[in-house]
Amino acid sequence: MINWKNLDELSSFKELESAERVCLPEVMAGEGGAERVKKYCAPMAEGLAYNYAAKSVDDSILASLAKLADEAQLLDKFAALYNGEVVNTGEKRLVLHQLCRGQLGDDVIADGVNKRDFYVKQQTRIAAFAKKVHDGEITNAAGEKFTTVVQIGIGGSDLGPRAIYIALENWARKNNALKMNAAFISNVDPDDAAGVLNSIDVPHSLFVLVSKSGTTLETLTNESFVKNALQEAGLDPAKHMVAVTSETSPLAKNEGYLDAFYMDDYIGGRYSSSSAVGGAVLSLAFGPEVFADFLAGAAETDKLSKEKDLLKNAAMLDALIGVYERNILGFENTAVLPYSQALSRFPAHLQQLDMESNGKSVNRFGEPVDYKTGPIIFGEPGTNGQHSFYQLLHQGKDIVPMQFIGFRNSQIGTDVDIQGSTSQQKLCANVAAQIVAFASGKDDENLNKKFDGGRPSSIIIGDKLTPRTLGALLAHFENKVMFQGFAWNVNSFDQEGVQLGKVLAKKVLAHDTDGALAVYSDLLNI
Amino acid sequence: MINWKNLDELSSFKELESAERVCLPEVMAGEGGAERVKKYCAPMAEGLAYNYAAKSVDDSILASLAKLADEAQLLDKFAALYNGEVVNTGEKRLVLHQLCRGQLGDDVIADGVNKRDFYVKQQTRIAAFAKKVHDGEITNAAGEKFTTVVQIGIGGSDLGPRAIYIALENWARKNNALKMNAAFISNVDPDDAAGVLNSIDVPHSLFVLVSKSGTTLETLTNESFVKNALQEAGLDPAKHMVAVTSETSPLAKNEGYLDAFYMDDYIGGRYSSSSAVGGAVLSLAFGPEVFADFLAGAAETDKLSKEKDLLKNAAMLDALIGVYERNILGFENTAVLPYSQALSRFPAHLQQLDMESNGKSVNRFGEPVDYKTGPIIFGEPGTNGQHSFYQLLHQGKDIVPMQFIGFRNSQIGTDVDIQGSTSQQKLCANVAAQIVAFASGKDDENLNKKFDGGRPSSIIIGDKLTPRTLGALLAHFENKVMFQGFAWNVNSFDQEGVQLGKVLAKKVLAHDTDGALAVYSDLLNI
Repeated sequence: MINWKNLDELSSFKELESAERVCLPEVMAGEGGAERVKKYCAPMAEGLAYNYAAKSVDDSILASLAKLADEAQLLDKFAALYNGEVVNTGEKRLVLHQLCRGQLGDDVIADGVNKRDFYVKQQTRIAAFAKKVHDGEITNAAGEKFTTVVQIGIGGSDLGPRAIYIALENWARKNNALKMNAAFISNVDPDDAAGVLNSIDVPHSLFVLVSKSGTTLETLTNESFVKNALQEAGLDPAKHMVAVTSETSPLAKNEGYLDAFYMDDYIGGRYSSSSAVGGAVLSLAFGPEVFADFLAGAAETDKLSKEKDLLKNAAMLDALIGVYERNILGFENTAVLPYSQALSRFPAHLQQLDMESNGKSVNRFGEPVDYKTGPIIFGEPGTNGQHSFYQLLHQGKDIVPMQFIGFRNSQIGTDVDIQGSTSQQKLCANVAAQIVAFASGKDDENLNKKFDGGRPSSIIIGDKLTPRTLGALLAHFENKVMFQGFAWNVNSFDQEGVQLGKVLAKKVLAHDTDGALAVYSDLLNI
Repeated sequence: MINWKNLDELSSFKELESAERVCLPEVMAGEGGAERVKKYCAPMAEGLAYNYAAKSVDDSILASLAKLADEAQLLDKFAALYNGEVVNTGEKRLVLHQLCRGQLGDDVIADGVNKRDFYVKQQTRIAAFAKKVHDGEITNAAGEKFTTVVQIGIGGSDLGPRAIYIALENWARKNNALKMNAAFISNVDPDDAAGVLNSIDVPHSLFVLVSKSGTTLETLTNESFVKNALQEAGLDPAKHMVAVTSETSPLAKNEGYLDAFYMDDYIGGRYSSSSAVGGAVLSLAFGPEVFADFLAGAAETDKLSKEKDLLKNAAMLDALIGVYERNILGFENTAVLPYSQALSRFPAHLQQLDMESNGKSVNRFGEPVDYKTGPIIFGEPGTNGQHSFYQLLHQGKDIVPMQFIGFRNSQIGTDVDIQGSTSQQKLCANVAAQIVAFASGKDDENLNKKFDGGRPSSIIIGDKLTPRTLGALLAHFENKVMFQGFAWNVNSFDQEGVQLGKVLAKKVLAHDTDGALAVYSDLLNI
């Protein structure tokens, strides 16, 4: 029996409130610091590791967090989710993105079908379609192979697939797995679609239209934009487009598309990279085997996320350290800092994943909560960020917890030795140095050159960014966000906060406004 | 006589602390709200306007902010800066980025030369060089025209020029001003350089190496990376590279480059887009006339920033409203949300500009300050963000002030009419709707669907994003950050916070580590 309690009702939370704080510069110093870095490390899937030595925790706080995990029944709630309970209570929906990559518990039957079978069937259909495109069995009207795939979607239909494509593009080129180039059209700004169409080979492009409901304003508008361009080029849009949508949407079984692949209401947009939303574009770009590897990595993480020992469950541990930082230490932000250019858009995806899931002020019963919920997420790749906003992270007035990500090896493997070290070694040396600089600081008589330290970070370390490790990484953050939502007792799977803007935008376009909104509309010449 | 006082020593600041707060949903309602949107609008350069109706201010608070501007002597400090005083006290340097685009006061003589003449001379030299490249007078060894320009730089040598290039690429293509494609290599991650080199036509590429000191680790490493690639392709690196650096750096007057263009110590990296750092790559990509237009727009903003009437000085007003939000209302972040896909990397540039300038904890005399300084800056283009992190902005536990940017017209002009409106109208309708949704909110019995409102934003509105309006926009934010730095009494022009990481990274690469750092180095296989 699950009790959905607010965080501040838990006795372990009160215990944490009164627990002694950790002084990071002290615990990270000397041999004790070295031992700590060795010890405070949790295994992750695919050989990744979550090292939290530079977080403001100690054995006592970790023990309280383990109590909190029990008291908040985090694993029971996860089990309820993967066994098919209606965890998204606001929208009265199941939450099944993990089921796209593996079955963790009972058979889940919904809408009269076994949902695991449904997701696997879509993967199989997509794989067969992609093979035909790659083999030249499905071509443009002139019988020529498609060379480019263009995703048309916004939000979850854009950020995740785009971040994954960018993360694997160089890896795929190196490993002869780049079957098609991918491009993305998302914004309703007409310059987005026009700019992308100017930069691609339209007659050899296959467009993937992604909208669960089949009614997303931006996406349908961009579809029309693209169809116009195809027609102006003398091409038949129906021969250049596939749809990813729900079976009940107007885009399903529609002669305007070469084919349609299905998702359902149990996959939230921001969790949809593992579904047909990611599957179609990524299988076309890299081949279905690569997408299968990505899912396999994610499935490994999902299994580990069932682990009862908090210290061996990296996603749950990461989640609870985040709760401790947000609700006890009072930090408002988290910076995501991958030392990997390939992950340049991964922070933007996590920004959606986290902020849209847990940026809430009411609990799952619609009652206001008296504690902070999801943090603000931002980030850029290192070392670039070091030459940008790190100044504030080191010496600003507010403390920003950091999530570093680093890999021992580059994806392409081409490197150069300068002053006795490779670029990859320089990259890794920088992330190691930053962790210690932030945690330990450095004294100086000139206060402008003094570093207080005490700025907490964790790092996820891997051997190389591959489809499997990327899948494992993504699932780690998805599950972290899920566990945090459970701890905060919010519904991480709806997004009512996006509705009001949509309603008002429609009024503006209908010229049904008065007051301030009418004047803004005038100023913008609408 | 200028008094460099801390913010909390000013009587106007105490006045603001005790001033009555503005209730945004109230003041934005009805006809009063309409009047407010018309009235709370400050002119900017190049036809832009700064509308702050949805900020939590009223006439009384604005009057106090005007007092603060006087008491903090913001305009006197700006005058000291442009007249050539040593405003960057930490590094004992003048601050002259505005002088690259126009002279606002006295002749500035430093290093024995008139600095305005020096900057203009570099612009002229760059223009002549770019013309020769475009006209085929400077070619590769095979006598073929260069088609691509690649900037090698990091931080300020990357973010600003890259954001500007992306902002104007579609505009240039539409207006036959795209002379060369541009690419950028920044990260020491070897996959960055390798990935860019894989995607460009190396034999027809001209590389611009940008490092003021000529010693930036990432940039020199990437230079070697590129030189290797050129040599492997049988090309002579000296025929494919120019340098942008200071006259005293090892890159100056060096036979390894086709030519060198100069900046100096009075141009901070994050303010260097107006100098040769932006000038070389942008003049090569778009032609020197386009870069001149960009500078002209910025110069117009600079002139307006001298305006004594706070309500007519948009940069100073924006700055002081930000101080009010940070120090009186207690907000920690600012989201920059351009409704323009072309400005997709503009928030990343502003993130550096703002956080590296004002993310400080000591005043210009090196004494700790007891108040908050620069905020955390993040952002993505709208409407994309609406389908991502806006959930938290609307319904999260923390209030995040927002800076919207919108244009009445698209750059390319290709558009599509769906359901009675164009994409551009939909884009503008959305930003108008968001401002009102954030400010006014909406009640609902279901608290999950309730919007509290009271979430402040401003919007900069323009007719179209062009080189001139972009210059005006960039200078607005540069001057805003400068005025805020004056108000907070910090030195906005140094960045001592980046030093410790550099020192520790060198130790790691020299294997001169112990304790925690040594273990991290092992974990990362350095």
